[in-house]
Amino acid sequence: MTDAPPDATSRLHRLRASIDNLDAALVHLLAERFRCTQEVGELKARAGMPPADPAREAYQIERLRGLADESGLDPHFAEKFLNLVIDEVIRNHEAIKRSARPGHPDTSHAGGRPGHQA
Amino acid sequence: MTDAPPDATSRLHRLRASIDNLDAALVHLLAERFRCTQEVGELKARAGMPPADPAREAYQIERLRGLADESGLDPHFAEKFLNLVIDEVIRNHEAIKRSARPGHPDTSHAGGRPGHQA
Repeated sequence: MTDAPPDATSRLHRLRASIDNLDAALVHLLAERFRCTQEVGELKARAGMPPADPAREAYQIERLRGLADESGLDPHFAEKFLNLVIDEVIRNHEAIKRSARPGHPDTSHAGGRPGHQA
Repeated sequence: MTDAPPDATSRLHRLRASIDNLDAALVHLLAERFRCTQEVGELKARAGMPPADPAREAYQIERLRGLADESGLDPHFAEKFLNLVIDEVIRNHEAIKRSARPGHPDTSHAGGRPGHQA
């Protein structure tokens, strides 16, 4: 498909090997992040805290913008990435809340205040 | 805003500290990934290779699905994440191609075949 010089093809293969390594690291870190947010969701459902926390999300977005800036990552992309992550987290929290309705063993600490979580 | 038990609040703070550490690691790995894809874009523009490579992208999506599966990350989220990354990469490649039109010093290896990159 391409008649690129051999040097370019070889350099492309080396860069792609680095990208593949970074992707593996990213996926494993994301998996670890989701283990944490999963636990946050369960904790909030048990304690009767609301799934979404706009102040925390605003703090995270502001902090990520700063980190993106100092690391050379495009801040616009960093924010899109964080919005994707936060959307997923809120969806997880909502799913946990639905599965932790009164009658479910995990709601024992919530003291029957499901309305407080809305 | 919340009358959650102190244990829950303390556990929430510890989980959020882990999430913040993971986010810092993620942003720095993403920045490194973008350094690589930036170089891929410049290399492709110089060598007259097309910015998008559907076979490579299909390989990456398939591989990431497998990694997501073995690491416990939701595969649907992994794919959304990868699509976000690939969209951004293609946009970068297109921007590099636009800035490397004939007359720009970096196009000297492309041999005046801009149509080949479309």
